[in-house]
Amino acid sequence: MKIEYKNPDHIHTYMANLPAIDSATADQAHDRQQQLTKPPGSLGRLEDIAIWMAGWQGQEKPQIKAPACLIFAGNHGVAQNGVSAFPPEVTEQMVLNFQHGGAAINQLCQAAGASLNVFPLSLDTPTADFSEQPAMSVEDTLAAMQMGADAIPDDADLILPGEMGIGNTSSAAALSHLVFGGEADTWTGRGTGLDDDRLAHKISIITKAVNRVKNQTLDPVTMLSELGGRELAAIAGCVLAARLLRIPVLLDGFISTAACLPLWASNNAALDHCQISHYSKEPGHRHVIDALGKTAILDLDLRLGEASGAAIALQIVRSALAAHNGMATFAEAGVSDG
Amino acid sequence: MKIEYKNPDHIHTYMANLPAIDSATADQAHDRQQQLTKPPGSLGRLEDIAIWMAGWQGQEKPQIKAPACLIFAGNHGVAQNGVSAFPPEVTEQMVLNFQHGGAAINQLCQAAGASLNVFPLSLDTPTADFSEQPAMSVEDTLAAMQMGADAIPDDADLILPGEMGIGNTSSAAALSHLVFGGEADTWTGRGTGLDDDRLAHKISIITKAVNRVKNQTLDPVTMLSELGGRELAAIAGCVLAARLLRIPVLLDGFISTAACLPLWASNNAALDHCQISHYSKEPGHRHVIDALGKTAILDLDLRLGEASGAAIALQIVRSALAAHNGMATFAEAGVSDG
Repeated sequence: MKIEYKNPDHIHTYMANLPAIDSATADQAHDRQQQLTKPPGSLGRLEDIAIWMAGWQGQEKPQIKAPACLIFAGNHGVAQNGVSAFPPEVTEQMVLNFQHGGAAINQLCQAAGASLNVFPLSLDTPTADFSEQPAMSVEDTLAAMQMGADAIPDDADLILPGEMGIGNTSSAAALSHLVFGGEADTWTGRGTGLDDDRLAHKISIITKAVNRVKNQTLDPVTMLSELGGRELAAIAGCVLAARLLRIPVLLDGFISTAACLPLWASNNAALDHCQISHYSKEPGHRHVIDALGKTAILDLDLRLGEASGAAIALQIVRSALAAHNGMATFAEAGVSDG
Repeated sequence: MKIEYKNPDHIHTYMANLPAIDSATADQAHDRQQQLTKPPGSLGRLEDIAIWMAGWQGQEKPQIKAPACLIFAGNHGVAQNGVSAFPPEVTEQMVLNFQHGGAAINQLCQAAGASLNVFPLSLDTPTADFSEQPAMSVEDTLAAMQMGADAIPDDADLILPGEMGIGNTSSAAALSHLVFGGEADTWTGRGTGLDDDRLAHKISIITKAVNRVKNQTLDPVTMLSELGGRELAAIAGCVLAARLLRIPVLLDGFISTAACLPLWASNNAALDHCQISHYSKEPGHRHVIDALGKTAILDLDLRLGEASGAAIALQIVRSALAAHNGMATFAEAGVSDG
């Protein structure tokens, strides 16, 4: 299936025709869980994950043979306002660190058995300062979304999108504030480590940006063009493409989740094929997860990004499938079922 | 080091001479975390786990080469009161299921790369009904504790003790109630699946048992002899031996944690070498973890036992060490450190 995001109408058409979970297969997986040698429900979230994987992969015994971690990196004009504790050149330095195998995500992907690919998106051309003007053109937004779709390997059976971009918690906060309303300080946190004064300044920048656009009617592409960044648009494009391909997704932290809010705002079922890997320490993330009606898998006070939480959660999904696929039934094992 | 639990005095002597964490090595590991290519603290709990492992293993870059899952199984006289949704013969049936590779813990250990050994403890001789009399003699208690110590493989570098025993949430509830006081219903849950009437009956059994012994002065061995079971005594003996050998431990759920409360009651530092793997859905577990001043690693609504939560948490510990040992420092990677 060739996925093309050549103009906003393509996105609208895809969003109006999202494939649903295979309920019959999910039901088969649910029935299987009731027969395994354990008290019903005693594997808790692992049972839910196995059934969810079965439904999206369309097989009663789902498999993880080629989990793909895809990291998108971008630079942000809003960073010139001093909204990050690190300088913008760190984005490119960290891309090199990913490519040389030295970052956290390299070790975590290796531990979890995931492939890792890194996609730097025009790092020498930061987006515009979205507190003043749109972050990027619609064309640039669609191109970044297409990069996200095209990044999915042909054999991928689980996608772990991640990001790197100095300043991008500001983009995530602005999108969250735009989609869910409330006050900017609900969605705005310290990112990589701001002090109180700089946090207050960051909140004022987010408020200004959202006030600039909030009275417009906004479709997903426009939202990402106004307040996004290239890596956020790429994640949105990747997650939409995964849905069209019926590949389940492990979303990572605040930025990766916020990148998908424009999809959710357009269609509240758009993230049904996604699990949230963890509750980030960045406080906006928990509010976003609650607003989506989801529950994250892990709660480890992570606030790194890079898909780090998704790579760790992959091991939980592997455990869920190992139990689901490998356990004996009561009948097979000759165990009394209560 | 030969560990012998021949009489209660041996236990007293060990408890009064527990080795402490190697603080100098833990400090080195903490310093290393500050130099890795990530914002300080951004790996959250993973950083804490790596530093804790370094301190107990006594090496700045701790290793997991031979994690050992040890399952102890016992039968309980208290089960004759109808305190479990499953009949007592399921204990032995599940031991066979472990031995044949069909249980959840077999799949989870395989997924996490842990060895698995199962120790059935006199399954044809249930303990006495502890609501009426001591569950077992001091000699039987010490013998079970010794089994727990002797079960540790020579090369083990991380221990995951687990249990199987129809009726053993009653023993866990009674020990928790004895050690922490309060009301029996705080500590008593539905186990494998009791209805409301049978839960109320179970609470009355726990109350009766604790009232029988609570005015005595109780050392660890007596507590386990009065209210324990063989598999709980084995876990206590195993966890104490691991401490003496400076091997870190991942405790599993309510029963495994409660089995260690007699050690903690005798010396509040006795479980410093243990992490709690997860918050069980069995409600007493969260209360016990809070009372111990600990925070569990996972919260997945598990309530299976068998060390299932510990096997899953092992993958989190592996991720923590992968990042700690494998990441580049800011200097090595040429990344600006903010």
